[in-house]
Amino acid sequence: MTKPAFILLDREMDGLYQCEANYVPLTPISFLERASFVYRKSPSVIYGDRVYTWSETHDRCVKLASALSVLGVNHREIVAALSPNTPALYELQFGVPMAGGVLSALNTRLDPPTLTTTLNLLEPKIIFVDHQFIQIVLEAFDLLSSKKPRLVVIGGKNRVAVPSDALDYDDLLSLGKPDFKIIYPNDERDPISISFTSGSTGEPKGAVYSHRAAYLNSLAVIFRYDMRKMPVFLWTVDMFRCNGWCFPWAVAALGGTNVCVREATAEVIFDSIVVHKVTHLCGAPILLDKIANSKTTEQRALPTKVDVIVAGPLPPSEIISKVESIGFEIHHGYGMTEALGPMTDRSLRKNDEKDNVGDERMKIKCREGTHNVLMEDVDVKDLETMTSVPSDGKTIGEVVFRGNVVMSGYLKNLEGTRKAFNGGWYRTGDLGIRNPSGDIMMKDRALDSITTKGEIVSTLDIEHVIKSHPSVMEVAVVGKPDINVGEIPSAFVTLKDDCFLSSNDIIKFCEEKLLPRSMVPINVSFGNLPVNSTGKILKYVLREKAKSIGIIPCTNGHKGVYTQSL
Amino acid sequence: MTKPAFILLDREMDGLYQCEANYVPLTPISFLERASFVYRKSPSVIYGDRVYTWSETHDRCVKLASALSVLGVNHREIVAALSPNTPALYELQFGVPMAGGVLSALNTRLDPPTLTTTLNLLEPKIIFVDHQFIQIVLEAFDLLSSKKPRLVVIGGKNRVAVPSDALDYDDLLSLGKPDFKIIYPNDERDPISISFTSGSTGEPKGAVYSHRAAYLNSLAVIFRYDMRKMPVFLWTVDMFRCNGWCFPWAVAALGGTNVCVREATAEVIFDSIVVHKVTHLCGAPILLDKIANSKTTEQRALPTKVDVIVAGPLPPSEIISKVESIGFEIHHGYGMTEALGPMTDRSLRKNDEKDNVGDERMKIKCREGTHNVLMEDVDVKDLETMTSVPSDGKTIGEVVFRGNVVMSGYLKNLEGTRKAFNGGWYRTGDLGIRNPSGDIMMKDRALDSITTKGEIVSTLDIEHVIKSHPSVMEVAVVGKPDINVGEIPSAFVTLKDDCFLSSNDIIKFCEEKLLPRSMVPINVSFGNLPVNSTGKILKYVLREKAKSIGIIPCTNGHKGVYTQSL
Repeated sequence: MTKPAFILLDREMDGLYQCEANYVPLTPISFLERASFVYRKSPSVIYGDRVYTWSETHDRCVKLASALSVLGVNHREIVAALSPNTPALYELQFGVPMAGGVLSALNTRLDPPTLTTTLNLLEPKIIFVDHQFIQIVLEAFDLLSSKKPRLVVIGGKNRVAVPSDALDYDDLLSLGKPDFKIIYPNDERDPISISFTSGSTGEPKGAVYSHRAAYLNSLAVIFRYDMRKMPVFLWTVDMFRCNGWCFPWAVAALGGTNVCVREATAEVIFDSIVVHKVTHLCGAPILLDKIANSKTTEQRALPTKVDVIVAGPLPPSEIISKVESIGFEIHHGYGMTEALGPMTDRSLRKNDEKDNVGDERMKIKCREGTHNVLMEDVDVKDLETMTSVPSDGKTIGEVVFRGNVVMSGYLKNLEGTRKAFNGGWYRTGDLGIRNPSGDIMMKDRALDSITTKGEIVSTLDIEHVIKSHPSVMEVAVVGKPDINVGEIPSAFVTLKDDCFLSSNDIIKFCEEKLLPRSMVPINVSFGNLPVNSTGKILKYVLREKAKSIGIIPCTNGHKGVYTQSL
Repeated sequence: MTKPAFILLDREMDGLYQCEANYVPLTPISFLERASFVYRKSPSVIYGDRVYTWSETHDRCVKLASALSVLGVNHREIVAALSPNTPALYELQFGVPMAGGVLSALNTRLDPPTLTTTLNLLEPKIIFVDHQFIQIVLEAFDLLSSKKPRLVVIGGKNRVAVPSDALDYDDLLSLGKPDFKIIYPNDERDPISISFTSGSTGEPKGAVYSHRAAYLNSLAVIFRYDMRKMPVFLWTVDMFRCNGWCFPWAVAALGGTNVCVREATAEVIFDSIVVHKVTHLCGAPILLDKIANSKTTEQRALPTKVDVIVAGPLPPSEIISKVESIGFEIHHGYGMTEALGPMTDRSLRKNDEKDNVGDERMKIKCREGTHNVLMEDVDVKDLETMTSVPSDGKTIGEVVFRGNVVMSGYLKNLEGTRKAFNGGWYRTGDLGIRNPSGDIMMKDRALDSITTKGEIVSTLDIEHVIKSHPSVMEVAVVGKPDINVGEIPSAFVTLKDDCFLSSNDIIKFCEEKLLPRSMVPINVSFGNLPVNSTGKILKYVLREKAKSIGIIPCTNGHKGVYTQSL
């Protein structure tokens, strides 16, 4: 029995003490500890034919932490990982913090130079790499200016050529002691993980999460989606993205089951739902397209309603209706790496969606909602005065938020952290409006909006209209500098297979949909849109391209249209 | 815009800061702030014909806090209250902390001397009293050794004779400023409320709750019962008991509706459920008896399933079956004032209850479960060595727990706090066992168990058998000192109306039910059991009584039986 440390809490109210009995640093590690006790024989992780119980997952994480400790991972030491959604990456979400370390799960779609930059910043002691990604990591190693991390291969070291000191994941686990004493954080504000921003606006930044923020956001996830005990969660969102939106920890808190898959194709999604009775899945809105556009041979009848959670602008209503008709309930969120994943909550959606139909219901569904119960506040601020914009559903401002489920800052980037938290709020750089109901609605990245004749125009609104054209697969609108009005909208369009359209077709379509004159694009170009490693459209590339596009007169009263491929 | 305070979090990981944007002291006040924004027009509190919205409740609480501030309530100042479950008492749960104060809602069943003792300990600046309880408070005032608190009358000052400086609750609110700046805790470990133990074992103690514990336990309540957004909560549990088990704050976190009633009779319960579509109610197990024994004229068909949460030993299976057949789902918990209310969780109940029927299912239902997701640990410890007892379903030890949802200590009772937290755990003084599944099951108060021939016997087990007799309303078993075996069980029985039984009938019944010889009571006495102000049976009174009961030989092989009325 350790002697408890008594800390006096209040001099006047004699008798109040903080001690082991009534104060424990908040950490998601406790969710696993409890799950292994309460849900010991229930399935924790399923991967192909392999089924682990919570008791087994706990024991594996303890042994992983023990082995990491043997390899020299100490308090606050960074451990990197590069893997699809495997059981190993799930175990790392607990095992690394249980050794006192800090996990940074990296984007599997990084190219070697970006991976090198990231590793130079992190300086990890160890990197866990799935066999599929060994080659890219070895290429990145060659470019490293910092010390090469020790390599641990997930899924069989003998499949690939690796350095002689490389270890195999399962061999490493067998080195670990099952009675290793878990290293809890001394302070709940200690770091637990580092998640990189997707970098649509420049250099990737490493957002550091604290144990406290991770713990509270795991609970927030559950609240936001009204999740109940023992859900079955299908891993369609990348576990490297904001620590899988904190779902590895949330699922443990609820004693649920993680269905891990290497690649979430439509077929895999439907099969998993039927076989494992999946209750929840989530990801970027492209997930909805994937489900809606799946072949009938891939689709299966859903055993029960499945909740699908997406963060980002919703696709057109046809897609939503189709996904809903299959048996999915769509939850729409907005978030970012700095907020540990999606953070808004459409708490009233049940009532107002129920009370409305058709377009009106869809409009409500597209709102981003407001702060979840563990996020202190979300606001929309005037860009100049930083005062709240009126809740009039039209005045555009910057979306800001604050609360305990916000990152501690950017790794080794003091200037970036100060800028991000300027004014006592996290500054998203995103533009939005506030509805009279209190819900916010995203308009655009601040950088991506257009100012034409002094008026801020949301390129998202223009994109929304163009995307509703049945032949359009993808669209991006950027501003093209104009000496007369400031900027003019310029559209870049990817068409669906076997579809043909002219620029004038798009412009006419915009006019038919009653888009205000100032928002109808002046240029419409066709081709494949440039994207970054996480699939985000690189608007800065398009902005450069737009500058070089000439404007020639055309017949419909507009200044002109010029078409070129990207 | 206030200048944010930046606190460096990590010297090595340059770039991590604690500031307003990412750190806010945890407090339930934030639940009300959010509810008033997100659920602004939804009903917050219903009381008879009066319906408040969350926006109105928020504004009233702000004005209450403002008025308290005017009356001199400062940081950490204690405000007492004595009221049934009125909207005013609900508003005090937020309004007092919003002025920086500490609320102590007192038991409405206290007698004047106990009330005086309590007020002398609290030394409150102000006391809010419902018109129904003015008389008892004025009597207590006459006995006070400390300064008389200022009296605020809830429900109409003119109805009763009060001191000249007494205020009316509604008049007080009208003094408050609607733009009062809420006083948030500087530190989340600051006190928010003081809740008194029911004192079944002696002097009442004031358990002090922190903002952090109250916030986290409000979330724990929601998790434990798998509650979803916007529940309708009927106030059948006293709001003075552990701050109404933290439900005032939990209901706000979910944007639900509080149905307040002065007295929760069976008729009121059924009517409220039908009229307001109640989803949840809770209280002591007597609530189940009340529902089961209600007249058919009082009963109404339930519109949907209603969750009823009880803490304490469950009544016989007949009562449970009856309550379930009406349409209630019974959730069973165990807790205490020091844990902010019920704290255990039967997380697997859905599975194991579903997989079992009849007696087996009832046995599982009666288990107390294990620690909820926000309580760090619950254990059963050997009384001497303080090591965990084996999970064998029979070895008795003391139930202990630790975690963030535990009180900060007892007000002005350093010795009591140290004793309660001795060994780094909260020592409940209750005896229990641990099942192989991990669930704990309560056996008895340590004080109430019997040691006979060196073996610890649970009086709860004996009581359980006797209570299953169809003519028995209530029973208590205590130990009677015996020079040969240590202690022998002595039973005190209250019979149902129009029922007649002899002591031998009870003894035979125990033998028929195969109770081990050492557990069959030697004495059985009939009469009304002595209870304290909260309805708990005063076993120490019965222990004294048992000592004076003689033992006379009887014919059934037992040493003897002697019957006397209490």
